[in-house]
Amino acid sequence: MDEFDFILKVKPNRTFQKNVKVAIGDDAAVYEPSLNRNQVVCVDTMVEGVHFLKHLSTPFEIGYKALAVNISDIAAMAGIPLYYLVSITVPSSWKEEELVEIYKGMDELAKEYKMDLLGGDTVSTSDKLVISVTVIGEVEQETQTLRSKACDGDIVFVTGNVGDSSAGLAILLDHVQIHNQHSKEYLINRHKKPTPRVNAGRLIGALYRASLNDVSDGLASELNEISEASNVGITVFKDQLPVSDELLSLSSANDIYKWILYGGEDFELVGTTSRNSWEKLKQTCDKMDLKITQIGLVDQKHSGVMLQTVNQELVRIEKSGYNHFRNK
Amino acid sequence: MDEFDFILKVKPNRTFQKNVKVAIGDDAAVYEPSLNRNQVVCVDTMVEGVHFLKHLSTPFEIGYKALAVNISDIAAMAGIPLYYLVSITVPSSWKEEELVEIYKGMDELAKEYKMDLLGGDTVSTSDKLVISVTVIGEVEQETQTLRSKACDGDIVFVTGNVGDSSAGLAILLDHVQIHNQHSKEYLINRHKKPTPRVNAGRLIGALYRASLNDVSDGLASELNEISEASNVGITVFKDQLPVSDELLSLSSANDIYKWILYGGEDFELVGTTSRNSWEKLKQTCDKMDLKITQIGLVDQKHSGVMLQTVNQELVRIEKSGYNHFRNK
Repeated sequence: MDEFDFILKVKPNRTFQKNVKVAIGDDAAVYEPSLNRNQVVCVDTMVEGVHFLKHLSTPFEIGYKALAVNISDIAAMAGIPLYYLVSITVPSSWKEEELVEIYKGMDELAKEYKMDLLGGDTVSTSDKLVISVTVIGEVEQETQTLRSKACDGDIVFVTGNVGDSSAGLAILLDHVQIHNQHSKEYLINRHKKPTPRVNAGRLIGALYRASLNDVSDGLASELNEISEASNVGITVFKDQLPVSDELLSLSSANDIYKWILYGGEDFELVGTTSRNSWEKLKQTCDKMDLKITQIGLVDQKHSGVMLQTVNQELVRIEKSGYNHFRNK
Repeated sequence: MDEFDFILKVKPNRTFQKNVKVAIGDDAAVYEPSLNRNQVVCVDTMVEGVHFLKHLSTPFEIGYKALAVNISDIAAMAGIPLYYLVSITVPSSWKEEELVEIYKGMDELAKEYKMDLLGGDTVSTSDKLVISVTVIGEVEQETQTLRSKACDGDIVFVTGNVGDSSAGLAILLDHVQIHNQHSKEYLINRHKKPTPRVNAGRLIGALYRASLNDVSDGLASELNEISEASNVGITVFKDQLPVSDELLSLSSANDIYKWILYGGEDFELVGTTSRNSWEKLKQTCDKMDLKITQIGLVDQKHSGVMLQTVNQELVRIEKSGYNHFRNK
């Protein structure tokens, strides 16, 4: 395989954003930023054997997810994703057709969001495939949905459902038996092809003030980050956590709350805003058919994050989300 | 090692650019682009065993070079480097102190250019260290120093000297014996700590028109890229190629032209511009003590790139620079 030929193969033959002045192919790409917008940037990496297993995901799904997790970070800053750059380190065990499929998986999402590929680097290695994606987006200059913006009395909310992704992973790894074929496929798909919540992020960004995180490391971890950064206590109501019917359909022998609270990779948005803003947000989301649910309150009676059970008991939730180095 | 603790350790405690609105630490970073400037972006990856060997480079040098090669791409677009994002995939054979040193190596260059670190991702893996760096810069909206901008009659130029870096690598790998200690250190240092030519790039960008590439894959490869993209022939005069005294000091048994033409990783800038612009550029560079040398002419009498020897013979130079997939 020739690196230059390969780049030509995966380079999209169209540009969505008219602001792209020099597309992929020169030393660097050039784009014109929109007036009165800030630029939002993030990078996230997926490693074979750590974030995916080659025998359990198709190359298309791996590419799709590698871009999705980065778009999710832009969504958590209320931004519009516009551009992406990709670096792939490839062992010889991967065929060129598989690499092309990885790029196709990214391209499916890129088309949905009208994003343009602005850079790529493909390097051979001896062992595991590593895919690192940088996404650049834009956001209004006055908008900052930071983790540090939660205030006493805020409503705590989350988009979509939580727990599906890690339940899907448990099914994929044969840690859990599931007989309902629809539920099985649904949960696995939530793990493999998460939906970045860009539209919800845009609505939340338009509020007067909101704190926001995407659920990459688990709800418990993200809520603790907001609690720490904002120096507030958070109470979560266990019976209000949004759970899909498919997750509920798993045998009662499985404690689904380990997935809901600590599972991670849901890529939903979790945040807080004032009660007034919440009511407006909820109404708009309902109209647009975007699921969003109140799951708790910012509550200065305690520090950290507490889970209130159906018996009104308060249980502390530690930040035990996924941390890649913890196992070292 | 804890990922969150590690990020705190390597996160610089200052921000150079006042336009950084949200620094590293939230879901994504946010910056305000300068008025009337385009954004320039690129990504480049270095892999242990492919781009560096752990026993031959210090972690500091590895970090330095990983950022330098990306700044060089921005320089080749006549841009000002401003921001960078880093993704590192780390096997357990690397100690935390070594990773901190990699970031210090990047920080040394970042301080020189007043660049801010806007994102980081650190993931564990089983095998080789992979470091992927994205750099964002800015350039005036009217400036485009593309490979496709060479015209008949242009002067072909290169900054600095060529061949040092790959001679330094040959010395490091014990492929070449060298007795002069100063020359040895100089050449190895050119390989390990290349100098991105940002100032020269800015001067070239200010010309009415110029084509430009950075010498990452070897002079022959970069000149062929300009020749192809601009659809022009290029003649290079062998006796005008700028060669350091240290490279010349290598024993005459070594054909230094394999390094000069095909070595790569010099990260000098090679390009073309009109004779008038060249004269202005040369004068300004001389005043600023920036070495820049005419090495040839754009010449429509032939296609591709030809080397004119001291005997006036013309020898075709193929695009045989380093291509990571060629050896597969």
